[in-house]
Amino acid sequence: MIVVMEENAPEDKITRVVDRLVTLGFDIHRSTGARHTILGAVGAQIADTRDLELLDGVQEVVRVSVPYKLASRAFKPEGTQVRIKDVVIGGEQVVMMAGPCTIESREQVETTAAAVASQGVQIMRGGAFKPRTSPYSFQGLGEQGLRMLREAADRYGMLTVSEIMESSQIPMFIRYVDILQVGARNMQNFNLLKDLAKLNKPVLLKRGPAATIEETLLSAEYLMAGGNHEVIICERGIKTFETYTRNTLDISAIPVIKKLSHLPVIADPSHGTGRRDKVPPMARAAVAAGADGLLIEVHSDPDRALCDGAQSLLPEQFTKLMAQLRQIAPAVERRM
Amino acid sequence: MIVVMEENAPEDKITRVVDRLVTLGFDIHRSTGARHTILGAVGAQIADTRDLELLDGVQEVVRVSVPYKLASRAFKPEGTQVRIKDVVIGGEQVVMMAGPCTIESREQVETTAAAVASQGVQIMRGGAFKPRTSPYSFQGLGEQGLRMLREAADRYGMLTVSEIMESSQIPMFIRYVDILQVGARNMQNFNLLKDLAKLNKPVLLKRGPAATIEETLLSAEYLMAGGNHEVIICERGIKTFETYTRNTLDISAIPVIKKLSHLPVIADPSHGTGRRDKVPPMARAAVAAGADGLLIEVHSDPDRALCDGAQSLLPEQFTKLMAQLRQIAPAVERRM
Amino acid sequence: MIVVMEENAPEDKITRVVDRLVTLGFDIHRSTGARHTILGAVGAQIADTRDLELLDGVQEVVRVSVPYKLASRAFKPEGTQVRIKDVVIGGEQVVMMAGPCTIESREQVETTAAAVASQGVQIMRGGAFKPRTSPYSFQGLGEQGLRMLREAADRYGMLTVSEIMESSQIPMFIRYVDILQVGARNMQNFNLLKDLAKLNKPVLLKRGPAATIEETLLSAEYLMAGGNHEVIICERGIKTFETYTRNTLDISAIPVIKKLSHLPVIADPSHGTGRRDKVPPMARAAVAAGADGLLIEVHSDPDRALCDGAQSLLPEQFTKLMAQLRQIAPAVERRM
Amino acid sequence: MIVVMEENAPEDKITRVVDRLVTLGFDIHRSTGARHTILGAVGAQIADTRDLELLDGVQEVVRVSVPYKLASRAFKPEGTQVRIKDVVIGGEQVVMMAGPCTIESREQVETTAAAVASQGVQIMRGGAFKPRTSPYSFQGLGEQGLRMLREAADRYGMLTVSEIMESSQIPMFIRYVDILQVGARNMQNFNLLKDLAKLNKPVLLKRGPAATIEETLLSAEYLMAGGNHEVIICERGIKTFETYTRNTLDISAIPVIKKLSHLPVIADPSHGTGRRDKVPPMARAAVAAGADGLLIEVHSDPDRALCDGAQSLLPEQFTKLMAQLRQIAPAVERRM
Repeated sequence: MIVVMEENAPEDKITRVVDRLVTLGFDIHRSTGARHTILGAVGAQIADTRDLELLDGVQEVVRVSVPYKLASRAFKPEGTQVRIKDVVIGGEQVVMMAGPCTIESREQVETTAAAVASQGVQIMRGGAFKPRTSPYSFQGLGEQGLRMLREAADRYGMLTVSEIMESSQIPMFIRYVDILQVGARNMQNFNLLKDLAKLNKPVLLKRGPAATIEETLLSAEYLMAGGNHEVIICERGIKTFETYTRNTLDISAIPVIKKLSHLPVIADPSHGTGRRDKVPPMARAAVAAGADGLLIEVHSDPDRALCDGAQSLLPEQFTKLMAQLRQIAPAVERRM
Repeated sequence: MIVVMEENAPEDKITRVVDRLVTLGFDIHRSTGARHTILGAVGAQIADTRDLELLDGVQEVVRVSVPYKLASRAFKPEGTQVRIKDVVIGGEQVVMMAGPCTIESREQVETTAAAVASQGVQIMRGGAFKPRTSPYSFQGLGEQGLRMLREAADRYGMLTVSEIMESSQIPMFIRYVDILQVGARNMQNFNLLKDLAKLNKPVLLKRGPAATIEETLLSAEYLMAGGNHEVIICERGIKTFETYTRNTLDISAIPVIKKLSHLPVIADPSHGTGRRDKVPPMARAAVAAGADGLLIEVHSDPDRALCDGAQSLLPEQFTKLMAQLRQIAPAVERRM
Repeated sequence: MIVVMEENAPEDKITRVVDRLVTLGFDIHRSTGARHTILGAVGAQIADTRDLELLDGVQEVVRVSVPYKLASRAFKPEGTQVRIKDVVIGGEQVVMMAGPCTIESREQVETTAAAVASQGVQIMRGGAFKPRTSPYSFQGLGEQGLRMLREAADRYGMLTVSEIMESSQIPMFIRYVDILQVGARNMQNFNLLKDLAKLNKPVLLKRGPAATIEETLLSAEYLMAGGNHEVIICERGIKTFETYTRNTLDISAIPVIKKLSHLPVIADPSHGTGRRDKVPPMARAAVAAGADGLLIEVHSDPDRALCDGAQSLLPEQFTKLMAQLRQIAPAVERRM
Repeated sequence: MIVVMEENAPEDKITRVVDRLVTLGFDIHRSTGARHTILGAVGAQIADTRDLELLDGVQEVVRVSVPYKLASRAFKPEGTQVRIKDVVIGGEQVVMMAGPCTIESREQVETTAAAVASQGVQIMRGGAFKPRTSPYSFQGLGEQGLRMLREAADRYGMLTVSEIMESSQIPMFIRYVDILQVGARNMQNFNLLKDLAKLNKPVLLKRGPAATIEETLLSAEYLMAGGNHEVIICERGIKTFETYTRNTLDISAIPVIKKLSHLPVIADPSHGTGRRDKVPPMARAAVAAGADGLLIEVHSDPDRALCDGAQSLLPEQFTKLMAQLRQIAPAVERRM
């Protein structure tokens, strides 16, 4: 951390700031310039640089290091690969996760599972507990939904991913789900993160719609600091002023996170756009930008979906998309 | 809900949309215009109008009614007053909630309690469980902190408000706290809201930094639909592109929420600005705009605060602010 | 336009609203529902639906048609192709526009021109008048810069594109420039748009960093309503809360604009990201999402650039990128 | 400016960065810490710190001084007062500017002038050239409108303020207008700012809806660097995700700008909210937060206004508001 004192700050103010930093546990490296005195402070952590900024005589406080450690690329330069059985997320292959937004019925899950498995999808998605803005919206089938997901996935040799909403659901989820998804609204539910940190199950952490990349990596840090290093980051769209799409899928977050962190990064163009016809171009864009995987909603009868049918691909659209992705992946030295 | 068909949409497309709406439980009122056919649909609820927008031949779908009911002004035109002992939130008096951001020590709580009580503060605030962006930041004193808060408040005849972070903390909070605060990051933690809805304790619901007013009222609706009608909304700043302040306190949200809803509305200028010297002007502005109360951080020694000292008022600054507020309140027919 | 009256609005309020609409020139189609009366209004234009929303008894006003006409896909379903000599923007080929951010010297222009021309770039870019946030920043070489750009482009058989900042520069720009660029900050400089509308030179219109797609198409409408139909829309990044990148390149805007409008759409990943190492992934993403062209900054010595060197590709990086794009284009039935 | 080198950056990288900074005209003050070497660089200006951030071995570059000078509070600690005849903006009195959004007819101007003058308004507002998002909206009466505004203002002893849209209008505006308003969309029309900088007429500079406070002060710096020091900053609402209000009036910008700069700051609650019933609370809030003046739209017949009638106060509403403001002003040691 660097503390820049105001121009010509008097000696007594400088001394007081140095004393304060020492009290906080910092070693101080002072350099006195022609106009500004600059204090380098190392060896401790503070919660909030604003506290120092308000000290008398201080002009600016600059954090030098990033606030996350275990999630940073520096911590593990070679890149993390999350392995579950024979699926590797973060390797050469772009991993596909697909399925309905919400589990609705045995028939729906079965039909969709058959469709996506035939295209080589490795991981089946499907929500059983749904965070809905309105208390009057369909909230999911619960454990019954998880069971249907598991059975259908098993039948076609796929893994499962589903969203967990609170810590008390952990024992249930462990029975049915291979990757625990933390939804965008829960990205900063720190109590949930602390509890998931104690498991040895991979977590798929969705970036919040108003979260910066740094905040997202700090949430990953909660998981890793607690002991769970199998974290997959998912870009799923951020809030912007554009209203035509539901969110704005931040494609640039993919190469940015891959530079800042060693964790695998996937993209969810279904939630990121909210419109079926925009899913294929954004899925192609995500792979072209270097995503390690995609999370895509596919529904055998989207017009009758109970939730988010508008953003679900029809099986035939998904098949066509897969063909395009197989053409694009080699341009970035990946395969589908 | 109104469904506008595309210009000159053919009869078979219109029929299909009507059929779909009927299946969903709507009564349809059709009017055929020179160019557009318009379908009025009443009597049912749908999760998401986008599903209808993607039907063939549909140009636009417009929700006519607001998606919340119990929280709407129409449901209770006269305005809700939340009463706890002799304190009324939402009445003629502007209610003051003040105290430290975080409970740090018995001495700190005691000194601050004395300072704010002497200014007529009715409700003491103080955090014991803190949602922190980084896992390495101070996370609060826990139950010990709540106990200190309760004791200090009791000694000075004040009520207490403190933030609850997950459902498992409810029994503990009920012992110490008069108003359960749901923090901005938990505004859409629907499982927590559902559990708080079962209590008969007032809930102070903070608007999320990226939430619209409608989303905030939908979270209030979760509490009310579950049975808890004692909800206080708190504006505490939204995310904007301005970086000088920590957030942008949306003063206009105060009159807007008071028009849309019958619930009391308070403002938190401490989190809303993040800078001590901006708290008094924004506190004055909130009262001038019609706030039912204020939530303000006061710390007897903010330079040594473990959290958010930068935004805490010194006791003497708080005293000066109270004098100004007493001058402003009568201009809006309120009293302090 | 549809005016939804409040539930059970009395007849006299309805009559007054109808009268007001008739005065404004609308034909009214009234339908009286069980709860709401709905007024369809056609045949006129109003500036601002909020005026009607404030009329007594009105609940909501909904615009049915998009506010732009000439720019809409409905106006010209087949898609516009802007042709300049043998270059076609909006055809099968993805058109490349490349060159330095700012013209700095004859040598710089010459070296960069040689580098980009060797990769098949059709149009050379380069700024001579620069809109700078600070009055103390380098503001460009002016006419001398335009002349250098023209000469270098001519030598290598390329066209030219450069940003125009005010109407008085039109005669000068016409001498040197094939495509007049309207910068993001001038997207709503309506006087400039009206003057450019009178020319028969193509205009490259950059989306403002806080503009919606609809606002961007309304600015295109200014050009087209004034008579200039050769408009190319450029997505160049929008403002979001993410600070790592300079802006967030909205890749989804590409398929969205191509659906809403018949105008060609290109992307500027250099301004969109502000960081050299993020330009190739975002350029690939843009082509994969269906862009008609790219605008890319290339500089032979970016470390010494007077402006935006940080986002300029080195010639060898540009060469590598072109090879990747040639692999991706066929996946979306395009060629480079 | 401070350049922080990466941890343990080798000597040759440090040397190269130092050389580059010296070439750019900086004096270097180097301090070698246990982990990081830090370079203090003074005595020159650079356009863009990102250029330095991309140099090999550089971790971070921090600007120490604000990028504006003449507009900063440090340049003129006592605060600027803009005087026009006997009106002082930035003094003890809160100055009122009021009138219709757009000049529509002689009768409208006359009625409104009489109404606002009777309440002690010092400056009459009214638009004659309107920047409209759509080319099909009413664009103003032009010079005829300015003449009507001048005549009405003169009749009641008021000054005038009106928006100028391009440099070619300067001679016309000088004849009719006392304060030249630069609209929010033109805040970064740097050519216009440079031309207005040469006049000795006060300029009212509106903050752009997506502009930070720093960007706003840099636009003020354009005016001041060119010689015009009579600049009034106007907060008029920023873009946020809230859709109920047209913009979000950033009340906190008032005390923030007054701290960072010596220039007077006024607020425009009419554009800031876009809804008549929200104007009085926000006008009260602005005065309570320390605004030097208000810019308010008043219309004698807002239902028939050609533009923005929805946000115009009726004369009787304005009268009531003035009474409230007279009560609030003394609380912040001001008078109306």
